Amino acid sequence: MPELLFQKFAEKIKLTEEEKELSRSFFTPKKLRKKQYLLQAGDVCKYIAFVEKGLLRLYTVNDKGQEHITQFAFEGWWISDLYSFLSGETSEYNIDAMEDSELLLLSKPAEEEMLEKIPKFERYFRILLQNNLIATQKRLAGTLSQSAEERYDELIQVCPASLPHRIPQHMLASFLGITPETLSRIRGKKAQDTRHKAQ
Amino acid sequence: MPELLFQKFAEKIKLTEEEKELSRSFFTPKKLRKKQYLLQAGDVCKYIAFVEKGLLRLYTVNDKGQEHITQFAFEGWWISDLYSFLSGETSEYNIDAMEDSELLLLSKPAEEEMLEKIPKFERYFRILLQNNLIATQKRLAGTLSQSAEERYDELIQVCPASLPHRIPQHMLASFLGITPETLSRIRGKKAQDTRHKAQ
Repeated sequence: MPELLFQKFAEKIKLTEEEKELSRSFFTPKKLRKKQYLLQAGDVCKYIAFVEKGLLRLYTVNDKGQEHITQFAFEGWWISDLYSFLSGETSEYNIDAMEDSELLLLSKPAEEEMLEKIPKFERYFRILLQNNLIATQKRLAGTLSQSAEERYDELIQVCPASLPHRIPQHMLASFLGITPETLSRIRGKKAQDTRHKAQ
Repeated sequence: MPELLFQKFAEKIKLTEEEKELSRSFFTPKKLRKKQYLLQAGDVCKYIAFVEKGLLRLYTVNDKGQEHITQFAFEGWWISDLYSFLSGETSEYNIDAMEDSELLLLSKPAEEEMLEKIPKFERYFRILLQNNLIATQKRLAGTLSQSAEERYDELIQVCPASLPHRIPQHMLASFLGITPETLSRIRGKKAQDTRHKAQ
């Protein structure tokens, strides 16, 4: 059933049939309806979640009620508040589903047992964290030094082609750290540039 | 000689004397004078570097000549442009020494051989990357949602006590993504608050 998960494993490590069978047993399937929470601020993040289907987001809400989205997770991606997951402290983040979604959840005891019984997963998670760190560093550098327009261009390049249709404008703006008005202005300018080039 | 390195290893994995001896052979010692580069933008980042002594920074320089510091590395920390190191593409970053420093360099072939011969290091690097990712995510969330003053407070909390004496004002400001004037205003305000409390 969780075929995408094993496809992703196979990109980084080679598992025997026995190891596949065993690793399957550590995951708990979970379906979320659109807008349903996986994690609410104030709770401890008990899982790292693999997205088999759907789309989720990780975000904070500040004192003024403004949402700040720090991550989207499409099919084949992982999502979690790692700090809360590892430390056991309550999370400042929310995770919810932006579409009906199907997840595979890995709890902390299950992850520890999996790493102990199949040490190859140390390598899988090492590579996964490495790629995630690179992406996060890139975003951080962008936030400090790029204009909103450059950040928008970069996002469009790295995300699936379906992104603009799947993520509402105000959430895209929140992810980019700009107002919806600024995003709308950037998009208007892009559309105009494209028309000029076509003429 | 590289005692700090083995102290750091021991916090996360248990190495036999034989493994210690072997792992030592993968590292190349390197001394840098203050202001000397370890990496210059346009070159490929060939090493991940462990700081035995000293202080380094990772930063970009934009078209207008402005520096944006994304990381400091104190004794016991690692520093690298991971993206360039892993992809073999040229780096947009510079790494240089802010003090006379002593490093232990690990090249890509050396890292691969070390992981192959001593698979325990998969776990070491997995945990290292995990902690680094959490810190980077925290900084990113802060950049998007916190005020400059909140970011300053957080930095002071997580960094060694020696930080204010070792990092020049304009570099601290660059790391926080604010102007030196804003940093100076924040510090002035803090000093005033402290005086008021003392009265």
